[in-house]
Amino acid sequence: MSNGAHALMNTLVEAGIDVCFTNPGTSEMHFVAALDSEPRMRAVLTLFEGVATGAADGYARMADKPAATLLHLGCGLGNGLANLHNARKGKVPVLNIVGDHATDHVPYDAQLQSDIETVARNVSPGFVRTARSPETLCRDAAEAIAAARGLPGQVATLILPADVSWSEGATPCPPLPQPQPPAADSATVETVAEAIRTGAKTALLLGGRALRAPALEAAGRLAAHCGVTLLAETFPTRLERGAGLPPVERIAYLAELATLQLSAFDQLILVDAKAPVSFFAYPGKPSYLVPDTCTLHTLATPEQDSLASLEALVQALGAGTAEPPRQPAARPARPRGKLTAEKVCKAIGYRMPEHCILVDEAITSGLMLNALTAGAPRHDLLTLTGGAIGQGLPNAVGAAIACPDRPVLALVGDGSAMYTIQALWTMARENLNVTTVIFNNAAYSILNVELERVGAEGAGDKARAQLDISRPVTHYAQLARSLGVHGTRVSTTDALLKALDYAWSMPGPHLIEVMIPESLTGLKRKMLPWLLRSLPSLPRPLTRALKRKIAP
Amino acid sequence: MSNGAHALMNTLVEAGIDVCFTNPGTSEMHFVAALDSEPRMRAVLTLFEGVATGAADGYARMADKPAATLLHLGCGLGNGLANLHNARKGKVPVLNIVGDHATDHVPYDAQLQSDIETVARNVSPGFVRTARSPETLCRDAAEAIAAARGLPGQVATLILPADVSWSEGATPCPPLPQPQPPAADSATVETVAEAIRTGAKTALLLGGRALRAPALEAAGRLAAHCGVTLLAETFPTRLERGAGLPPVERIAYLAELATLQLSAFDQLILVDAKAPVSFFAYPGKPSYLVPDTCTLHTLATPEQDSLASLEALVQALGAGTAEPPRQPAARPARPRGKLTAEKVCKAIGYRMPEHCILVDEAITSGLMLNALTAGAPRHDLLTLTGGAIGQGLPNAVGAAIACPDRPVLALVGDGSAMYTIQALWTMARENLNVTTVIFNNAAYSILNVELERVGAEGAGDKARAQLDISRPVTHYAQLARSLGVHGTRVSTTDALLKALDYAWSMPGPHLIEVMIPESLTGLKRKMLPWLLRSLPSLPRPLTRALKRKIAP
Repeated sequence: MSNGAHALMNTLVEAGIDVCFTNPGTSEMHFVAALDSEPRMRAVLTLFEGVATGAADGYARMADKPAATLLHLGCGLGNGLANLHNARKGKVPVLNIVGDHATDHVPYDAQLQSDIETVARNVSPGFVRTARSPETLCRDAAEAIAAARGLPGQVATLILPADVSWSEGATPCPPLPQPQPPAADSATVETVAEAIRTGAKTALLLGGRALRAPALEAAGRLAAHCGVTLLAETFPTRLERGAGLPPVERIAYLAELATLQLSAFDQLILVDAKAPVSFFAYPGKPSYLVPDTCTLHTLATPEQDSLASLEALVQALGAGTAEPPRQPAARPARPRGKLTAEKVCKAIGYRMPEHCILVDEAITSGLMLNALTAGAPRHDLLTLTGGAIGQGLPNAVGAAIACPDRPVLALVGDGSAMYTIQALWTMARENLNVTTVIFNNAAYSILNVELERVGAEGAGDKARAQLDISRPVTHYAQLARSLGVHGTRVSTTDALLKALDYAWSMPGPHLIEVMIPESLTGLKRKMLPWLLRSLPSLPRPLTRALKRKIAP
Repeated sequence: MSNGAHALMNTLVEAGIDVCFTNPGTSEMHFVAALDSEPRMRAVLTLFEGVATGAADGYARMADKPAATLLHLGCGLGNGLANLHNARKGKVPVLNIVGDHATDHVPYDAQLQSDIETVARNVSPGFVRTARSPETLCRDAAEAIAAARGLPGQVATLILPADVSWSEGATPCPPLPQPQPPAADSATVETVAEAIRTGAKTALLLGGRALRAPALEAAGRLAAHCGVTLLAETFPTRLERGAGLPPVERIAYLAELATLQLSAFDQLILVDAKAPVSFFAYPGKPSYLVPDTCTLHTLATPEQDSLASLEALVQALGAGTAEPPRQPAARPARPRGKLTAEKVCKAIGYRMPEHCILVDEAITSGLMLNALTAGAPRHDLLTLTGGAIGQGLPNAVGAAIACPDRPVLALVGDGSAMYTIQALWTMARENLNVTTVIFNNAAYSILNVELERVGAEGAGDKARAQLDISRPVTHYAQLARSLGVHGTRVSTTDALLKALDYAWSMPGPHLIEVMIPESLTGLKRKMLPWLLRSLPSLPRPLTRALKRKIAP
């Protein structure tokens, strides 16, 4: 028997949760004090809760188990919501521990009093619980962990009142048995197999865990044996890719392209993925992107074991000995001259080290990255699953802690970077092997694209000013240095390549700010050929009207 | 008739809401486009939503009317929750406009889809509404504005689906009549007057709008005529103070001191304030701080007009011609030598310009500020009403926009500053007259205090490391420069005084980082005499045990 905090700490580490991303306050001080009694728990301090939650997301994507967060009441949780949203949409397991006032203190409505369960509900719909006593706390925690770890992975929130934390009477709870998620049943497998056997043009749409190497191998056998095309959801939680792995084609971000891409198929088979919908709504345009002529099948839902389901399909179709197509090794040529977004992506493809973890939140500047890193050495790609920007830097923190021996490369737009810029400090404090590339075009470029796309009439200088972050231009390299991270600003490809090599040769965090003051028109012009290279399924040739729409 | 966005813009400015703190995304593009059709609306871009909401809070505290925020779906609102919490606790009117997906797009559960009403509920319990059509939008907006502006002021959240924004058919709605809030009824006034007439030792506890000059004048007459003591809530939304104004004594933050302070009174009369409770709960200590021997009366609730209520009480007690006590002008002597938190507060008291707006989020480093600025020229003090740190810099942005002719001085702890550091960029962009002083002691000092106070046993190096932000020490002056703000780091009083004079003589934002590497023990030792100066009601002499508790 011990106090709640100590027993909880033990319960966590016994369940394998041995990393906690923290931003504590007074109500969490007993949990903090309990850290010294548990050498197995690593506590990683962040200066803002959005860093803690985004790091927990990135950690779990790579470690395949949840980290804990330690957050200060409803306000701390509030600051962490955006990255918890990304984790939720990515089906990533996260365990939030949110301190609360002592139970007796709640009715007094003190300054920090708020309705934490309500704050948590949206990101943590499957599990929000307030611990009511030290005696029941650890069982609550074990259930929260089991909820987070089940399929689909989810955000579970355990609210820990200060008195439950400080009171005696708690006993650690061993981990609950984690039920094996089911594979697709044989009838489903047979239905899907039969659909493929018809010879109709078929794509498998892979999402979630179906984008890991073992699932890609199985899917690759189907591609080789049955001629199905492998598609991936637009924003994968974690995609294993690069030379030697079976390649997959991501659904395009632009709705017009995605619909065209899907029009090449008679049937779409969902594997831990949902049917594609557009990111935003646009006046007069459909949200649902699957053409009427395309039949949907579901092989595996997010609740099911997608790998086992794919393997069952491989067996059903007799594809067990087929050799998957493999991405050939290929890097772009060395870029030269003044930097542009295209050349930055080229430089990364040209130089990316082996086993890199690539965190992509480069938004418009990263549109060419997919094509330019396709044949780079094998790597993992983490993307913006929920669309809540500010995910890149914290995800990189978490990934680096999950995989200390692998280089992490975070590609972040200058707009996105500012939401959780405090992550740089944690990179410095923990001496993480993260190289951050900030694309400084001094604009919310994506909004310049969207402003046209939504058909907003009458937008003039005042509206454009809302998308312009050039007055002042943030100096990210200087900003990095102020937070203890080695920072360099570059504007030529030579300088960028030198900075990348330096970053990869020196342990610890580095930030490279690439100055790419090109116009959006310029970017769009260069973007098109690279985008098309990533979309081999797209029926060719494109109409002139569509080309103008994508890259006027 | 026009589209929803244009009609909404007109509705806002006709109701006097002519400042909007923004961080828009795609779903808000039509609102952004409508900015160009309404020259009266000032849109202030922020790089993070917590800056937008905190700026709206600071703006409304000074302008006495709400600003709008423009936030991007549930995730944008999530990022703004902490400072909306502060506004809610401070009874400050704010109008959130939160863009949402188009109504038809919602069922598709796209990446950014979330339950915005749930996210809003905790900070906006009195008014959350999703606009359902362009025809009803402007009425919804007018009702939201009326809800925000009523007494007590509140956060009202209007959710604006993209299609309601872009569709035609909207008509602006004129402002709704704003009912005059009632004063205390005559029976209540008479009851309170009778209680005062008994001659029992009485304190008026003033909060909310009762801390503005006119209410202080009325309360001051009561102090002069009836001998009542004027107390203020611990964290005022906006306190007018300084030379020439009736002084009020704030309730101490430390619960032990607050209880002792209140023990000097037989009765406590609440005026737009709640009975004091401790900020946090501590094991074995009461949350409610009013001694049993002290009777509570309520003159005016937050729903009532506190000024009219106080004036009615003045009349009932025949105090109408009494001359209030007035704070004599007095500044501390010029500090000299190496900087400490005490000397920074002295320097500010020594130099503070007239009509300054003082935003205090200095936490431990500001504990002496109250005493050291009491006799400074008249100023407004804005404090951390809800305890959610990250309020100081954004509040300063809003205050500066509300009062462009007044100097704004933001005093911020290094821990607090990082939550919403993006505010510096908006200060630069808008060239705001804000001088920020960051107290860099490289620690969450308050948590070192609290770790002892909550009696957390067994805290060792690992726990202490969670409160230590010295590896690396953030360089705030450099950070400011990276965001376009003039930044200086100082470690002597001479340099600080020079930097303050420079900042006040040159328009635009300045940041002065004061290096105060002193130990917490050192701070606590110096703090006690200044703290006691701010608490004249405290029965003297203090016991040795209490002294040790406060400043061991």
